[in-house]
Amino acid sequence: MNTSRPEIYLDYQSSKPVDPRVLDEMIPFFTEKFGNPSALHKVGDIATDALEESRREIAKFINADDDEIVFTSGATESNNFALLGYMLKNKRKGNHVIISEVEHISILNIAKYLQMQGFNVTRVPVDRYGRVSIKKLERRITDQTILISIGYASNEIGTIQPVAEIGKLARERGIKFHTDAVAAEGAVDLDVKRDNIDLMSLSSNDIYGPRGLGVLYIKKGARPNPVIQGGGQEKGLRSGTENMPAIVGMQAAARIMKKEMKSEVKRFRGWRDRMIKQILEEIPDSYLNGHPQGRLASNAHFRFDGIEGESILISFKDEGISVSTGSACSSKTLEPSHTLIATGLLHEEAHGSLQFTVGRFNEDSDIDRALEVVPKVVNRLRKLSPIYKARK
Amino acid sequence: MNTSRPEIYLDYQSSKPVDPRVLDEMIPFFTEKFGNPSALHKVGDIATDALEESRREIAKFINADDDEIVFTSGATESNNFALLGYMLKNKRKGNHVIISEVEHISILNIAKYLQMQGFNVTRVPVDRYGRVSIKKLERRITDQTILISIGYASNEIGTIQPVAEIGKLARERGIKFHTDAVAAEGAVDLDVKRDNIDLMSLSSNDIYGPRGLGVLYIKKGARPNPVIQGGGQEKGLRSGTENMPAIVGMQAAARIMKKEMKSEVKRFRGWRDRMIKQILEEIPDSYLNGHPQGRLASNAHFRFDGIEGESILISFKDEGISVSTGSACSSKTLEPSHTLIATGLLHEEAHGSLQFTVGRFNEDSDIDRALEVVPKVVNRLRKLSPIYKARK
Repeated sequence: MNTSRPEIYLDYQSSKPVDPRVLDEMIPFFTEKFGNPSALHKVGDIATDALEESRREIAKFINADDDEIVFTSGATESNNFALLGYMLKNKRKGNHVIISEVEHISILNIAKYLQMQGFNVTRVPVDRYGRVSIKKLERRITDQTILISIGYASNEIGTIQPVAEIGKLARERGIKFHTDAVAAEGAVDLDVKRDNIDLMSLSSNDIYGPRGLGVLYIKKGARPNPVIQGGGQEKGLRSGTENMPAIVGMQAAARIMKKEMKSEVKRFRGWRDRMIKQILEEIPDSYLNGHPQGRLASNAHFRFDGIEGESILISFKDEGISVSTGSACSSKTLEPSHTLIATGLLHEEAHGSLQFTVGRFNEDSDIDRALEVVPKVVNRLRKLSPIYKARK
Repeated sequence: MNTSRPEIYLDYQSSKPVDPRVLDEMIPFFTEKFGNPSALHKVGDIATDALEESRREIAKFINADDDEIVFTSGATESNNFALLGYMLKNKRKGNHVIISEVEHISILNIAKYLQMQGFNVTRVPVDRYGRVSIKKLERRITDQTILISIGYASNEIGTIQPVAEIGKLARERGIKFHTDAVAAEGAVDLDVKRDNIDLMSLSSNDIYGPRGLGVLYIKKGARPNPVIQGGGQEKGLRSGTENMPAIVGMQAAARIMKKEMKSEVKRFRGWRDRMIKQILEEIPDSYLNGHPQGRLASNAHFRFDGIEGESILISFKDEGISVSTGSACSSKTLEPSHTLIATGLLHEEAHGSLQFTVGRFNEDSDIDRALEVVPKVVNRLRKLSPIYKARK
């Protein structure tokens, strides 16, 4: 066990530190500029101005109009708001929603809830890379279909969906298109107009902003019912006093990301490709999960025959490296990843997976160290594995 | 207009600055200890430990058990969660909920939504001080009543409700009791066991913690349906990655408040009583809104014959003093306060009201200055008022 080394963090998909530049912009809104935007005095006015400025900056980040941005408490709430809110609001128009088999757990669970409420939900399958086929999607559309909700990219295996094509199809068929863009934030250039997106969930933390804040982009004409009622903030769409430090933080995060994304993504891609190449070459019976090209620049996701995910995690913990075996959102359960199962893996294959996600504060040496540790850990575990030995 | 003086803030009920000691405890959780409690590595473990420690500290603040604390995005969500969640979960047991006429706007609007969903809602009236009578409450209980939701204290006029008596009545009749305790936080010693409270909404900001975080206390056996679904955090009751900096902040805020509340309340009471005495004495045709004794130590709420609330606000803005004419949660509407109307005031009387709420960072000189400005403003406005002149 290395207690002298600082922890190496390669689990950016599960949580990101707030960028210190973002935190600097937030601080005054905790202590000095702490007003409630609804208050009719100077302290309130300062908050109101910051609120609308932040809305503008975040709108720019996704090429939306200011009044299409609604602040929520995070991506999970945004997903609830979009799916539940839109289906409940428009149930007279139709009762069918299409999602995919590789959605974030919040989408899957909201879809289950919708089914209990009498809505029809179809889960379109994916190919072995985790990609939705447009043809299969199209075949599932009925005259009752009013919403398609497909995540922009997988938060687990990193596969990017053909979002522009889905948007085009949905628009042609008069169906609204929601995308949970959380995993794609900061990795792809989000443009709601170009991609014909009607509803889009964003998370502040996924662009190095603070937790506890998200956005639902709502195109004019795609208004959902609110899920949180009260004082009528956010034009009645999301009540509750605005979380100004976080809103200002997300604004700063979006501004910085817009400026730095291109060079950042280039750096990540270098690391990712190096990891993929070296691990697949050096370690026998190792495979890449997710799409070989159409994947997030930050994501390298492997599986190793004959190894249990839990024992990999323990070994990496001992080595001082933070990694994941799947979605952090449900990694405390023992269920295999639904995303990996959807790509056709068997339960035992899905259990032998390992996810690296790099981020803004990684350095070359972190990748060096990970690449040094992975073969060591895999070899050691395989020596102890009755399954692996039996198969060889 | 005084541009040289720093703004004097006497609107603590609408928003509070974060205590710098609270912010100090939060900072590391933005940048270093940024883990997701669901992640199975060292960075995640640090977050998990902080989460459970925070839960314990906040439980102590209200004399609850750790596992009765559920984190939400704020008081409005907690109120939605309690009312909607409990009624939907228990609709087979009964369809009647009792609230009061002086609830926070979030409770009123959730109650309206419940009515649209087919539930029966009764609004129990209040006396001229804004207090609910136990007898009137009792008379409204039917065999369908499964929930009573009465706010602990009014966020507008400061009147404290007979919470222990309501709790006792509810317990005797086998009805669950929810209280929105946001306005009372830091002003009264909250004790869910002593007062037989089953569900209680708390806000972090109201004890000088950060915005964007609240709690719903849920006594065993009073479980509501979740309003936000997803990854199953908070035992499935509130999904979404935990907002750790805010949770740690609320913990610090609760710890500090528990220690300092007694001396703080004493200080506030001195200011409040001085304001009430001096204003009622010095200004003719001025009245106190809310209960003369049974009110929050931080709240002084007046009305002045012949004056419009909006013009008071503009005058105070010019004087560099931040005050409110009513609930900040809806002060951008032109509606008179529903709370003042419920105490029997006419619309024009309710419009002539002015609310001072003091807080941790006020000083004696703030009160001096307010007491200097109030008579000046009232006299000036009355000279311009055709209504006031006509009546004299």
